[in-house]
Amino acid sequence: MSSSRKKLFPLVSADVALFSIERERLRVLLVQRANVPEQGRWALPGGVLKPDVDASLEDTARRILREKIRVEAPYLAQVATYGGPDRDPRGWSVSVLFYALLPLDQVPAIAGSKTEAVDWRDAARPGPALAFDHAQHVAAALAKLRDKVERHALPLHLLPPKFTLTQLQRTVEAILGREVEKSAFRRRLKGDATLEEVPGEFERGVQRPAQLYRASEGFVFEA
Amino acid sequence: MSSSRKKLFPLVSADVALFSIERERLRVLLVQRANVPEQGRWALPGGVLKPDVDASLEDTARRILREKIRVEAPYLAQVATYGGPDRDPRGWSVSVLFYALLPLDQVPAIAGSKTEAVDWRDAARPGPALAFDHAQHVAAALAKLRDKVERHALPLHLLPPKFTLTQLQRTVEAILGREVEKSAFRRRLKGDATLEEVPGEFERGVQRPAQLYRASEGFVFEA
Repeated sequence: MSSSRKKLFPLVSADVALFSIERERLRVLLVQRANVPEQGRWALPGGVLKPDVDASLEDTARRILREKIRVEAPYLAQVATYGGPDRDPRGWSVSVLFYALLPLDQVPAIAGSKTEAVDWRDAARPGPALAFDHAQHVAAALAKLRDKVERHALPLHLLPPKFTLTQLQRTVEAILGREVEKSAFRRRLKGDATLEEVPGEFERGVQRPAQLYRASEGFVFEA
Repeated sequence: MSSSRKKLFPLVSADVALFSIERERLRVLLVQRANVPEQGRWALPGGVLKPDVDASLEDTARRILREKIRVEAPYLAQVATYGGPDRDPRGWSVSVLFYALLPLDQVPAIAGSKTEAVDWRDAARPGPALAFDHAQHVAAALAKLRDKVERHALPLHLLPPKFTLTQLQRTVEAILGREVEKSAFRRRLKGDATLEEVPGEFERGVQRPAQLYRASEGFVFEA
């Protein structure tokens, strides 16, 4: 890229904080950067907008997840957009940050062709020395997700298609980073139209099998 | 701009929904576009990011308000970022949308040098046929502001430095588009640390002058 172009046009990219639940802990996916800048450091999956390929910013985010970690079409929501001359050594850059939610078993263990390695980190402590301003990105994405769940959105995108109310509570707790009171939690679920019983289906392999639930037909996690 | 550049680099701009209160109604400022595209149509004040001038996206938004409507340093918050190939006839474009709050008397009646005319419109019904996707922008910015106020943020940036609790309630009502119950509203203000009495100062020119209030020292409207 010539320096005059760098001066006239900011670099626009999308970054994605992909969250999942692993053993009742909220995790965020990091990838080890295969290329300069910040080669070898850990970062959120991200990449440059391609105006000739992408039909929207969400499209950019989905393409990047596909290319870098072979993940298709998770739930995506925009967090915020960051911009400035010093974020990236390549020049003035704009990063549109999204978060995505996906059950762990839908994320392939192998990395995409453009990534050296992937790692699931504790979402609240993703580790020291992330590339660029990605530590701030993870914190902002987590705050947005927590806020959503505090406001009674159910994180059904992180669960398997059928789940118990205890699994749901553990997932809410993993996101909030604190325990919630069981009876109050159950009370508020009673009026929640996003959730329904799976008729006649119960948990397997336990002494007192619990009722299984699923997202109601037409459920959309509010963005 | 050559067509190869258009293909490689999206156009990045900031747009601002500037809200104010006029006769107890929430208004949004529109400007009549002086230049192509969409010349002569009404739009939010907006403009293209200048990497050699702006230190951040907020900087871009502030520069645009200064240039287009001669407004300095209002409260600014990011709403969302929109992008796609069809938003702007000049090619793939990214718009970072902000909202801003300012008392009406701090907005000069005259337009900036780059604007033909300005108009304050009803924020909930800014009028038909706005330029670009700006009708959607106004709706998104209003939803964000309402959400903030529903969650008990006080819109002190829209009020004069000293105000009565009735003025505050009318401002909240103007934003929400509905009446709020006076005694419940007063009760919740009691515990609000963002607000303090102005000792010994009361409204003037009325039969039963009400106590004046102001923002507490160090008040920051949460973004």
